[in-house]
Amino acid sequence: MVTTDTISLSTKGHCDIVDITLPVEQQLAKSEIVSGIATVFVTGSTAGITTIEYEPGIIADLKDAWQRLAPDNIPYAHDRAWGDGNGYSHIRTSLLGSSLVIPFKDKKLALGTWQQVVLVDFDNRPRQRQLVVQFMGE
Amino acid sequence: MVTTDTISLSTKGHCDIVDITLPVEQQLAKSEIVSGIATVFVTGSTAGITTIEYEPGIIADLKDAWQRLAPDNIPYAHDRAWGDGNGYSHIRTSLLGSSLVIPFKDKKLALGTWQQVVLVDFDNRPRQRQLVVQFMGE
Amino acid sequence: MVTTDTISLSTKGHCDIVDITLPVEQQLAKSEIVSGIATVFVTGSTAGITTIEYEPGIIADLKDAWQRLAPDNIPYAHDRAWGDGNGYSHIRTSLLGSSLVIPFKDKKLALGTWQQVVLVDFDNRPRQRQLVVQFMGE
Repeated sequence: MVTTDTISLSTKGHCDIVDITLPVEQQLAKSEIVSGIATVFVTGSTAGITTIEYEPGIIADLKDAWQRLAPDNIPYAHDRAWGDGNGYSHIRTSLLGSSLVIPFKDKKLALGTWQQVVLVDFDNRPRQRQLVVQFMGE
Repeated sequence: MVTTDTISLSTKGHCDIVDITLPVEQQLAKSEIVSGIATVFVTGSTAGITTIEYEPGIIADLKDAWQRLAPDNIPYAHDRAWGDGNGYSHIRTSLLGSSLVIPFKDKKLALGTWQQVVLVDFDNRPRQRQLVVQFMGE
Repeated sequence: MVTTDTISLSTKGHCDIVDITLPVEQQLAKSEIVSGIATVFVTGSTAGITTIEYEPGIIADLKDAWQRLAPDNIPYAHDRAWGDGNGYSHIRTSLLGSSLVIPFKDKKLALGTWQQVVLVDFDNRPRQRQLVVQFMGE
């Protein structure tokens, strides 16, 4: 069985990290599927999906880490060609990935207590984001 | 229902970035599955899969980013032991990942207009690559 | 069809890299599923899953790479707030990811000969880890 839902949400951009665990769990509760996988996918090339312990320290640390890994203040060929100034956002997204698969059993995702599912919006402006949340199983 | 196909392609190595969106979509069109997940997996330990906006600026920026993240001109223990000079290729692959899962519905992948599926071949020579493209759903 | 198993294992922490290919293959052999996906997921926010060629050179190189990418000897806000000293472990996990999906066909995972599935335990102490290994298919 397959159910495919969409979650729409607003972000502030600039490495905004949004906890989406609850809406994913709520969609799972509504689905008829008991065991299987949840696939969370963000459409677009400037935002990614991962898991973190969602607490202010880690959120600040993750923003600092991305600034070291793919700085927003060095030249990017994308920006020279298109002028939209978000070359770093594309690079970060490509490294982090846009997709996450979480197994579940008896209606419970395999997440730990301090392991939340997050959208990381790397773009350089506020965005309206569409997430696909799909459950497959039996 | 499950269908498993293989895509074979030649790369130039050296961080060659190949757009594989069209062959994945063509395999999906041929499949009988309407909604579910597409899993794209590259066999081997020196190439990965991700999504990017496939345009020359981003392609150049991504190559530069990988050179900063896991440089090809620093010593690697793998190279001292095996002499094949592609230690950096292994490290980059391990960071990027060899697998991507994309949900689809009504025969349409959840990709954005400027979000392409790419193979990144990190090896230090041209390679013939085998990708597994598997569709599962109903 | 869906089967969900758990693998429990001890790690040394400190970027301990554990080859889990064999237990995953053994679980697949026991399952009734012939073709589909294996999802390997580690519960917790300080360990990740990826693939590497599991040989001593690459293992040493990967530890060096993570020390460059998210050093354990710089300040982290998480550590200032919580004092557990593993802020870098959380950041590395968020970058690497906790989930891996591998397609299989005719009971054989799509892995290459030199492509092993590994748990990377980034925490700063030995840990007992729970992995979820789920097979879905037909």
